[in-house]
Amino acid sequence: MTASSSYGKLTNQGASTNIAWHQASVDRAARAEQRGHRSAILWFTGLSGAGKSTLANAVNQALFERGLTTYVLDGDNIRHGLCKDLGFSDADREENIRRIGEVSKLFLDSGAIVLTAFVSPFRADRDKARNLVNEGDFIEIFCAADLNVCEQRDTKGLYAKARAGEIKEFTGISSPYEAPETPELSVDTGAADLANCVDQVVNELISRQIIPAQH
Amino acid sequence: MTASSSYGKLTNQGASTNIAWHQASVDRAARAEQRGHRSAILWFTGLSGAGKSTLANAVNQALFERGLTTYVLDGDNIRHGLCKDLGFSDADREENIRRIGEVSKLFLDSGAIVLTAFVSPFRADRDKARNLVNEGDFIEIFCAADLNVCEQRDTKGLYAKARAGEIKEFTGISSPYEAPETPELSVDTGAADLANCVDQVVNELISRQIIPAQH
Repeated sequence: MTASSSYGKLTNQGASTNIAWHQASVDRAARAEQRGHRSAILWFTGLSGAGKSTLANAVNQALFERGLTTYVLDGDNIRHGLCKDLGFSDADREENIRRIGEVSKLFLDSGAIVLTAFVSPFRADRDKARNLVNEGDFIEIFCAADLNVCEQRDTKGLYAKARAGEIKEFTGISSPYEAPETPELSVDTGAADLANCVDQVVNELISRQIIPAQH
Repeated sequence: MTASSSYGKLTNQGASTNIAWHQASVDRAARAEQRGHRSAILWFTGLSGAGKSTLANAVNQALFERGLTTYVLDGDNIRHGLCKDLGFSDADREENIRRIGEVSKLFLDSGAIVLTAFVSPFRADRDKARNLVNEGDFIEIFCAADLNVCEQRDTKGLYAKARAGEIKEFTGISSPYEAPETPELSVDTGAADLANCVDQVVNELISRQIIPAQH
């Protein structure tokens, strides 16, 4: 898992200097010991409007208040940056999730708990992200608000546009959402209040010994 | 700079529930206060064999020992992951550096000092990465070992292959390296010993008030 495992030595054998530059490295285990918690990928998935980004950010806040190293990846910081060259074709959606998986792996390696909040409707794409890392590093969290609730909320007005045919291939309306079959955690973001949902996620991290019960 | 600045509220106005989910956020300032240091991008550039990755990892180690939040991006964790779809055409090299710039911006936003170690031979590409972030967040560090030293070291045997014509468009041999004109720091990685080079980088970070003099 450490990015530095394959590093070699850089040796200057020139006449004018005689310098051996030995490669230093800091690995995940060292970071975990220093920070007092393991790193992990918390992969939030669910329909548009299910509360993925809201829940991820609230969990992020709760973990931050415990002094933990965390970061949220969501549409706001990915779609206009790393993935701004991608559209919404099948291939581009797949590449979008692939890159998010790879960036999550980098944050994981850096010692952070990284929270990703994307619809990520297809099992195969989510499983590719899962398979980039070791067992136990990938925590899939299903935000299980059902379609009726999400469409009623319609926070961004996207469902209305999808129903009107202004958005093609909108997940839940004109494109499938493949719910996780065995997510590490399923949270009823359609009915439970936010604080309760946050507690469920935090307790899951404690029970998996990713974070200490008291920090 | 905060990824969360444009977050809205998610409000459930359904009949069965009446839940207002307010978006939480943790910004760079909060993280900097908690961790006791600012975040920054340390962009190491220089010829193959100039010692970029070695120096970046040694600085990373030194900062880690001070308890700071850091991470190194280099060929080992980027080329086989996020950028494994890219080859070495001009367009792909440019896209490679673009993605590294965007990922660095995410780490910056997360509160980390991120160290990137790539040849990044073209000024225009480096300047694009610089321009993704605010003034003062991007510290360009020129690893100024000259071509003779790098070719004499030839740590990876690449110069020999380039001279033999087995590698096309190899920086310094058959493709230009555009040295930074006004880097934030220039380190003579061809002559100075590693500990001295590390001190130069650490002192630069202290003088720029990115990290405290004593942590």
